[in-house]
Amino acid sequence: MSLSDNTHMQMALAEARKAFQRDEVPVGAALVDWRTDEVIAFAGNRPKELSDPTAHAEMLVIQEACRKKGLARLPDCDLYVTLEPCPMCAAAISFARIRRLYFGAHDEKGGGVENGPRIFSSSSCHHQPEIYGGIGAAESGELLKRFFLEKRMG
Amino acid sequence: MSLSDNTHMQMALAEARKAFQRDEVPVGAALVDWRTDEVIAFAGNRPKELSDPTAHAEMLVIQEACRKKGLARLPDCDLYVTLEPCPMCAAAISFARIRRLYFGAHDEKGGGVENGPRIFSSSSCHHQPEIYGGIGAAESGELLKRFFLEKRMG
Repeated sequence: MSLSDNTHMQMALAEARKAFQRDEVPVGAALVDWRTDEVIAFAGNRPKELSDPTAHAEMLVIQEACRKKGLARLPDCDLYVTLEPCPMCAAAISFARIRRLYFGAHDEKGGGVENGPRIFSSSSCHHQPEIYGGIGAAESGELLKRFFLEKRMG
Repeated sequence: MSLSDNTHMQMALAEARKAFQRDEVPVGAALVDWRTDEVIAFAGNRPKELSDPTAHAEMLVIQEACRKKGLARLPDCDLYVTLEPCPMCAAAISFARIRRLYFGAHDEKGGGVENGPRIFSSSSCHHQPEIYGGIGAAESGELLKRFFLEKRMG
């Protein structure tokens, strides 16, 4: 975990906090060109705002980076996301050929990387990124816990 | 398989043929409101055209239908798609709460429903549609075979 890795995860966490303020499940992501350290795209969850169940933070940054680069594959990019990606996002990360996946809290219920269908270990997965889990997990987990607690208490 | 089911799959096949002409992997989809039999959205694959690895036919129709309805969930909709959905699309189908999934050819290599990570059987899957596979499979399989044969022959 380098200093810049920490900076990138802090940027993803800032997006997660902004998602919380929009009443979205607080997850944030940043996509970084590892050759230049440039942040290509950053986003928080927006399914409620966009009425789009696929508008997870990871999908939004992949789509934006591809649009910016005019490419459907991003082998020069690393993804930082505050929560273990779900199966949909994990498969998209594989399709996009992202080099490294850094994620925060593990997601036993909805995760698809080290939980559930473990997308990258599946026979139908053609690209597995290097995976670094648990980065900034405490801050991310605390944010998620507070969000769902507030939801339950109405 | 009712007459209208067949009509809807034929519409998805027409989209697959149009995708072939655009040099995209020939997969097509149609999303139908099962209460009214109205086709809400139809699309073929567009990852190459849009430089977007997530632009599978299923994702495009789900996103369009959600946009039209202003809802992130589509329990009133059935999805017709010419190929077994990949893990990304299967997870999106689950998030969108689609009632029924009709698909054409099975996809041993890239499928995520009855192959690979079998998304709907996973512990992290919160909604499983009713699934009807193999509908219009011969025509869909033939189209895909021809596409990849032409690719190999350059």
